[in-house]
Amino acid sequence: MDLATVIGFVLAWGAFFGSVMIEGGNIKAFINPSAMVLVFGGTFGATIMSFPLDQIMKLPVILKHAFIGAPVDLGKTIKLLVSFAERARREGLLALEEQARQIDDPFLQKGIQLAVDGTDPELVRAILETEIAYVQERHAVGANIFATMGGYAPTLGVIGTVAGLVHMMENLSDPGSMGPSIAAAFIATLMGVSSANLIYIPIGNKLKTRSAGEVLLREIMLEGILSIQAGDNPRVVEEKLKAFLDPSTRKQVAPEGVIV
Amino acid sequence: MDLATVIGFVLAWGAFFGSVMIEGGNIKAFINPSAMVLVFGGTFGATIMSFPLDQIMKLPVILKHAFIGAPVDLGKTIKLLVSFAERARREGLLALEEQARQIDDPFLQKGIQLAVDGTDPELVRAILETEIAYVQERHAVGANIFATMGGYAPTLGVIGTVAGLVHMMENLSDPGSMGPSIAAAFIATLMGVSSANLIYIPIGNKLKTRSAGEVLLREIMLEGILSIQAGDNPRVVEEKLKAFLDPSTRKQVAPEGVIV
Amino acid sequence: MDLATVIGFVLAWGAFFGSVMIEGGNIKAFINPSAMVLVFGGTFGATIMSFPLDQIMKLPVILKHAFIGAPVDLGKTIKLLVSFAERARREGLLALEEQARQIDDPFLQKGIQLAVDGTDPELVRAILETEIAYVQERHAVGANIFATMGGYAPTLGVIGTVAGLVHMMENLSDPGSMGPSIAAAFIATLMGVSSANLIYIPIGNKLKTRSAGEVLLREIMLEGILSIQAGDNPRVVEEKLKAFLDPSTRKQVAPEGVIV
Amino acid sequence: MDLATVIGFVLAWGAFFGSVMIEGGNIKAFINPSAMVLVFGGTFGATIMSFPLDQIMKLPVILKHAFIGAPVDLGKTIKLLVSFAERARREGLLALEEQARQIDDPFLQKGIQLAVDGTDPELVRAILETEIAYVQERHAVGANIFATMGGYAPTLGVIGTVAGLVHMMENLSDPGSMGPSIAAAFIATLMGVSSANLIYIPIGNKLKTRSAGEVLLREIMLEGILSIQAGDNPRVVEEKLKAFLDPSTRKQVAPEGVIV
Amino acid sequence: MDLATVIGFVLAWGAFFGSVMIEGGNIKAFINPSAMVLVFGGTFGATIMSFPLDQIMKLPVILKHAFIGAPVDLGKTIKLLVSFAERARREGLLALEEQARQIDDPFLQKGIQLAVDGTDPELVRAILETEIAYVQERHAVGANIFATMGGYAPTLGVIGTVAGLVHMMENLSDPGSMGPSIAAAFIATLMGVSSANLIYIPIGNKLKTRSAGEVLLREIMLEGILSIQAGDNPRVVEEKLKAFLDPSTRKQVAPEGVIV
Repeated sequence: MDLATVIGFVLAWGAFFGSVMIEGGNIKAFINPSAMVLVFGGTFGATIMSFPLDQIMKLPVILKHAFIGAPVDLGKTIKLLVSFAERARREGLLALEEQARQIDDPFLQKGIQLAVDGTDPELVRAILETEIAYVQERHAVGANIFATMGGYAPTLGVIGTVAGLVHMMENLSDPGSMGPSIAAAFIATLMGVSSANLIYIPIGNKLKTRSAGEVLLREIMLEGILSIQAGDNPRVVEEKLKAFLDPSTRKQVAPEGVIV
Repeated sequence: MDLATVIGFVLAWGAFFGSVMIEGGNIKAFINPSAMVLVFGGTFGATIMSFPLDQIMKLPVILKHAFIGAPVDLGKTIKLLVSFAERARREGLLALEEQARQIDDPFLQKGIQLAVDGTDPELVRAILETEIAYVQERHAVGANIFATMGGYAPTLGVIGTVAGLVHMMENLSDPGSMGPSIAAAFIATLMGVSSANLIYIPIGNKLKTRSAGEVLLREIMLEGILSIQAGDNPRVVEEKLKAFLDPSTRKQVAPEGVIV
Repeated sequence: MDLATVIGFVLAWGAFFGSVMIEGGNIKAFINPSAMVLVFGGTFGATIMSFPLDQIMKLPVILKHAFIGAPVDLGKTIKLLVSFAERARREGLLALEEQARQIDDPFLQKGIQLAVDGTDPELVRAILETEIAYVQERHAVGANIFATMGGYAPTLGVIGTVAGLVHMMENLSDPGSMGPSIAAAFIATLMGVSSANLIYIPIGNKLKTRSAGEVLLREIMLEGILSIQAGDNPRVVEEKLKAFLDPSTRKQVAPEGVIV
Repeated sequence: MDLATVIGFVLAWGAFFGSVMIEGGNIKAFINPSAMVLVFGGTFGATIMSFPLDQIMKLPVILKHAFIGAPVDLGKTIKLLVSFAERARREGLLALEEQARQIDDPFLQKGIQLAVDGTDPELVRAILETEIAYVQERHAVGANIFATMGGYAPTLGVIGTVAGLVHMMENLSDPGSMGPSIAAAFIATLMGVSSANLIYIPIGNKLKTRSAGEVLLREIMLEGILSIQAGDNPRVVEEKLKAFLDPSTRKQVAPEGVIV
Repeated sequence: MDLATVIGFVLAWGAFFGSVMIEGGNIKAFINPSAMVLVFGGTFGATIMSFPLDQIMKLPVILKHAFIGAPVDLGKTIKLLVSFAERARREGLLALEEQARQIDDPFLQKGIQLAVDGTDPELVRAILETEIAYVQERHAVGANIFATMGGYAPTLGVIGTVAGLVHMMENLSDPGSMGPSIAAAFIATLMGVSSANLIYIPIGNKLKTRSAGEVLLREIMLEGILSIQAGDNPRVVEEKLKAFLDPSTRKQVAPEGVIV
């Protein structure tokens, strides 16, 4: 579970409804079918137009990824790679074959397997770098879909408000109904701006920051695999990989030593 | 047919008209000749000014490309390239000459032909990379034309609304006509913002995302051709090319094996 | 003559005035000396502040470039380069000296001359690439001046409108004059937004897209000159250069063969 | 202490409150619980959604970094590196081992230690460049969190204002309360825009400019360490490093000579 | 003196005051102490928060640079470098030592001195490129400070206007004072938008365009020094350097020949 997404979502919408209640407002007043149809239908429609169908179909999976999914643990991966380096040093590169089978991460597994198979290091680097580049590109698409929704939603809110005001202006016979009509017209803006800023844009940002973490993890794996294949001293492997960490995480890795 | 563009278009405009009908509005009220002339004429005029004439002339073809055109199938192309690699391995590179003639895609055909002709691999890479770079640039122009239209349309809507309000303010003799006049003035904004956000910008985005897919396809072809020319083992070719895919598509390629 | 600029300009302003006339407005109402002084004077003043004097002095030449100037013809240039390649192949590189003198384009002339002089290919590439890079930079300045004007004009319109409203608010004694005063105040916004979106920004865009075409032309020339100097087969020269073209233009080049 | 952050903060908020007092306003009128809950709660909620939890947890440390923390002293570091170069020249690279232990900065210490250990210069560069790249990336995250907050806050202000106006419009029975209701609604915008522009965005910018300074410091250290390891003449080391400085700082370094 | 900055400044503000006078407004009406305190104090405060103190302290020097300082003369520098090339060709590189002492520009002087000292060309390039890169970075900071001010000023104007309207709305007892109160509130917006668009942003742009010119000058010097050090023929030096110029400036350099 990605706690930050859940906590942030609850806090943001709690603040919205809490603020309405402090003012003595009525939540039901904000439910307006005409505005909902326009803002949600229009945003989804424009977004579907903007992307290939197969990327749109992955939306539920992408959304799940923003709410669920364990955070990346760089320190653990570095320890694992250093332990592989020690094993390879002691028993030779082939000794890693058996361990490779038990690795959960398909990227690391594939990389170790390529190294064990004696693939040319340049080719190992090329294959794994291509994979990282395209993982990055696919993640960017997910983040981009939500950012695009966050761009359409407020303008659809504005469309709804202007359409509502136009409708009201043409029917000025009853000035007493002006207030509620203007109120109804503005609910479209409210829905557009709040869905964009409290749902779409934050989720798009979360997907982007998660992707950065996962790419960093893979870059560490790549450097580690190549360093192990080159037969580097486990201490050099550790030194190389710890350069990717910030000082506080680095301390967490160092004291506990290395799992073998 | 690009289903996503069609579905999205219908959904977005359905939401717009549905929302107006729920409110009890009249669609005819939104048809205003003065606003239409300004917003559509002005947007097209400013766009034509912005681009060379030959790019403007390609607009209908570009538009067709956004609505029609089969989605890119990466898995199929990888299978085809692996089958070429196996054939070349068994019967030599020249055996591909005959197959090259049956390829639909001119980029792949040209690349295979260059490899069969024994062109220097560096030159093959240079020619095909130049082609990819300029395909990308030409696609960008199409997406850019629609993005530019999406930028002009809302400002032309604002121009129409301000001009309408100025006209009304100078003729305040009849306060009873103020409401409909303001309504008419705002219709220009409505047209500008909705044509931008429910037509131009989504189509521009679709052209951009389609281009990304087509460029990826050509990059896979390029890597495959060079790998075949280098006499790589078909398994290595497959491994190299599958690095471009996302894990779910990768599975679709693997189980069925390779077409020969 | 750049037809697109002229057609677009006429269409955009025709739409503006046509729209006003449909509404029954009076064009004269939009002529307001106070707004004109502020919007045009302020935009030019801020733009002059933003650029070096010698770049500002080139504004008339740059403007002419957006309206006049034949479109780039890539196909013709490729045919010419292939004909040079054939001549060089048959009669030696020195045979191009005489032809170089008849070339209109100074860039191509200089490049051929450098090749004929037996300059080191790396140096030829370096000199011509420097020239392309700085042509690009100088074009960017022209486009940038107009984009900057397009950025200042609407904000100066807003300044004029706010100043007009402030002036009106301080003199509320005669409510009857409020309408025309607000109308006059909004004319500044109208001028700022319309001059930006129907003049400055489209011209800036046109300069940018023209520059892209001219840079592509020079890149083709550079590749062609280096390929000729390397003694490439004319068919290879043609293949290399046609990679820069889109498929439809490519067909125009191919069937007619090569001029010698 | 980062004086600029403190002085700027006091000046900006002093200007805000001073301006309110000159107008004869009452500070208390700007305290509105409903607006505070929405703007601050909503901004934090959306920000928490946008980032991984471990980055959010570092917020207090990041904030401290913007207010406290001595400015970077490039001149002093260059003098230190030149003194190392002289020592290494006179007594050999190993003589730096003892001095390395007394260095405060862990980056410089690690670099000197790697050089003393006789690590291959390419590996020293690779390790230290990786470290610089990821320091830069981590700093960017901190600046990004505040920039993101500065983006959400004004839109949450707008949400609060629109919600307040909607609430007012639906309860128009008492026209006398309209003024204070509108005032209360606008306080949300005021809070959103002022917290963004007088807190979040400036702090984000400060973190970005501080990061640039710290990265420059590390780049100077890297060049210095590699130059010392290569056995460069101390004058060459000084010349190389002073190229990073602006002319005025350069003068401060030169006259005092070099600490040995 | 940078004439363009001065002329543009006078023209822009002349347009502003001229426009107010044509409307029959009173300049004094735009002087509002509360708005001035907020807009100028707030803008400076937020800017000081955003940058390190030592960069803020250089603001007067940076400002002077935008108004004073001769324009860059590329042609003169190229002639000088070609004359150096001829002298070095005739009398050897050492003959430039004496001339180097008379050069005003410290960058050129240092480069010639390094060449005369027989420094390795790769090292000369590395030192001078580092210097260019950091000159560029320092210039960017100056331009960035003004761009940042141009970003804060309008939002502080909006803060002032909203605060003024809130204050007015809470004190609606006297409807007669509404007009002047609204007018006063809008003066903050006027100050914010006009100081941004007629002072800060144009000065930021000027600093950016000046920097581009000065960097180009240094790049020409770098190429010239390396070409002289390589013992290139003076005609080749001239050809290489003239590639940086636009055709019209190039003509100014060519006919007059070369100063020796």
